Amino acid sequence: MREGAILVIPILRPMSVGPGVSIGQIETTIAAFEEPLPLESGHVLPRFEIAYETYGKLSMGRDNVIIACHALSGDAHAAGVSARAFASAVDGAGAGQRAQAGLGWWDGMIGPGKAFDTDRYFLLCANVLGSCRGSTGPRSIDPTTGQRYNTTFPVVTVADMVRAQRRLIDRLGIRGILATSGGSLGGMQALEWAVRYPDLVRGCIPIASTTRLAPMGLAWSAIGRNAIMADPRWRGGNYSDDDPPMAGLAIARMVGHVTYLSAASIAEKFGRRLQDREEYSYSFAVDFAVESYLRYQGDSFTRRFDANSYLYLSRALSYFDIARAWGQGSLAAAMARARARFLILSFSSDWLYPPSDSATLAEALRDAGVPHETHVIASDYGHDAFLIEEDRQTAYIRTFLRGLDA
Amino acid sequence: MREGAILVIPILRPMSVGPGVSIGQIETTIAAFEEPLPLESGHVLPRFEIAYETYGKLSMGRDNVIIACHALSGDAHAAGVSARAFASAVDGAGAGQRAQAGLGWWDGMIGPGKAFDTDRYFLLCANVLGSCRGSTGPRSIDPTTGQRYNTTFPVVTVADMVRAQRRLIDRLGIRGILATSGGSLGGMQALEWAVRYPDLVRGCIPIASTTRLAPMGLAWSAIGRNAIMADPRWRGGNYSDDDPPMAGLAIARMVGHVTYLSAASIAEKFGRRLQDREEYSYSFAVDFAVESYLRYQGDSFTRRFDANSYLYLSRALSYFDIARAWGQGSLAAAMARARARFLILSFSSDWLYPPSDSATLAEALRDAGVPHETHVIASDYGHDAFLIEEDRQTAYIRTFLRGLDA
Repeated sequence: MREGAILVIPILRPMSVGPGVSIGQIETTIAAFEEPLPLESGHVLPRFEIAYETYGKLSMGRDNVIIACHALSGDAHAAGVSARAFASAVDGAGAGQRAQAGLGWWDGMIGPGKAFDTDRYFLLCANVLGSCRGSTGPRSIDPTTGQRYNTTFPVVTVADMVRAQRRLIDRLGIRGILATSGGSLGGMQALEWAVRYPDLVRGCIPIASTTRLAPMGLAWSAIGRNAIMADPRWRGGNYSDDDPPMAGLAIARMVGHVTYLSAASIAEKFGRRLQDREEYSYSFAVDFAVESYLRYQGDSFTRRFDANSYLYLSRALSYFDIARAWGQGSLAAAMARARARFLILSFSSDWLYPPSDSATLAEALRDAGVPHETHVIASDYGHDAFLIEEDRQTAYIRTFLRGLDA
Repeated sequence: MREGAILVIPILRPMSVGPGVSIGQIETTIAAFEEPLPLESGHVLPRFEIAYETYGKLSMGRDNVIIACHALSGDAHAAGVSARAFASAVDGAGAGQRAQAGLGWWDGMIGPGKAFDTDRYFLLCANVLGSCRGSTGPRSIDPTTGQRYNTTFPVVTVADMVRAQRRLIDRLGIRGILATSGGSLGGMQALEWAVRYPDLVRGCIPIASTTRLAPMGLAWSAIGRNAIMADPRWRGGNYSDDDPPMAGLAIARMVGHVTYLSAASIAEKFGRRLQDREEYSYSFAVDFAVESYLRYQGDSFTRRFDANSYLYLSRALSYFDIARAWGQGSLAAAMARARARFLILSFSSDWLYPPSDSATLAEALRDAGVPHETHVIASDYGHDAFLIEEDRQTAYIRTFLRGLDA
């Protein structure tokens, strides 16, 4: 569905799915923007589209808007049951069952009476620029050539993603944002929103995120990109739909996937259990359950994600650096721009976006005199906890949002 | 150099290299064994060769023998300056400079006055079965076909490696072992020695090791193997020397390499420093220093290691499980076989072979009534610390060995 300047409110058919009540069937909308978008790299996107979904009702005063931002492999389908093609988002390891039911990646957090209560708030989730899940990215047609961009698509940054989202909220007639939130790459967008558009954003909830990826995270991201680009089927990015670099993308996904887990959660879930056998095969076949699981994760990811998009989003993750972009290296100087209040959540076993990164952000906010609260949630689920530990996040988020409301 | 039943003592030319005194120029010897070796898998190796080096002098009573066991990418060249082709071992990230000087992977630990004091002890280091560094492995010629084994080489286990080493010490006329030691896969061999041949082994020093790889370690190992086997140049293992699966092997090495480091050591060494540039390239080229380093590590590894060997040694690592093999699932029952004393060393930041794995071993030894001591060495160097933290290991090892001597 395309739309111009008119706000499309999805038809909500409340239904019960799983343990909680889901917001019901949801459609993804695609908004087209014909005015060129200058990018941080100096390049210009001549036109672009943004896929998005909304949940709940925009208040008369248009002051109940919350932007939910998705992570690397996510999409606009954050809650409810998807009525359309962009239905199979699995963002991280925890959301598998949810996606099988067609539910959004944060359905446990967004809905009636949930952390982001759709009886009170109007939620917006937009697929990021550079993705392959509805918004413009390397798989899109370059209007100047009539061909797919592939790797001629300009490298986009988290700032570019947020600037594209800004165009969207302007289009929707939204003039203020109650809060921005998201986990991982989504938390980076939430932070960028608060620093880039301080006059618009009243609250910011980065979860399992960071103001810049730690060097070990840079390493894992680089390995994933190398795995894709080393696959001969990648062909410099100019692969066909019939023969994509599935092997390289699967390896990249396996690496990413393990970094989203914790040693404890892998041990708890799989241990050293053998898969459908009693004895070692003495071969290179799948013997251990964890080996079978990884292969499944790698293979299934290649059916729903584009290898070039993975490169672009991985690069955006690596480049993000609030202090470098906004504070000439000083995080406190960068964060001093914000007029929002911050709720910072992290998870004890998340070693990819460790609690210490959240503590660094909190210290910068303290030095900058910006109001904030920080909570480290004890969890064995690693980075994936932001998709799994719903109850424990809900308590903090509900209270924080009520405080902004007041 | 081939030799039959005669013990070859290398010619030692003491020389000073680097900060300490190295034992000098060393030759690698290849011992050939024509009697078939039955393997744990049920297959039989019709014949095999073992590459080995020795350091120090065998005492008149032949009671000063210490076996040093190497890790996945290591070889027989543990100390001194290699006079021959098997000279470029770099086992883990820490030993790079050492290898450039032709020094063995544990030269800081083995030599006159060092932890394994060659003025007192006779050290032996044998390249493991399945490797590509002199001992029989998938690159060797199958005598029954006259062709390279490649993946028709039987899967070998740590137990098979140790049983091959047993043949070697029998050949050398050695009837007792003062101690077995090694880091990582080397520590697994040291443990297997003590449990399999309790009457032979008086001391056992597993370092940064485990009685079975944790499930997260299984995952990383599987990703490395998948990366190699997904490379079209792997060709089911039947690649030519001119066109090996370098891309897949490089990815496997990058994954392994990062798991050998710690978040702190990567942050300390590279941070988010850019490589030879001030600004982002806004491309998928190498921008960050850590990206450049990883690419170098991946590429250089492919010049000295065989992809099939990597598969075999990775599989051996994954299969190793002392409790399963010797205790019907009970680690204490397995360890009760040992008559050795144990010195168990681990490193605080090693998340691949974490100190908790060493604690589990210590508890089993306690339950089995086997004398042992355990030390967790505080270090930021991660798993690689066993190659780097020489001084801190030396103090413990020297005292422990004197105790065995007495």
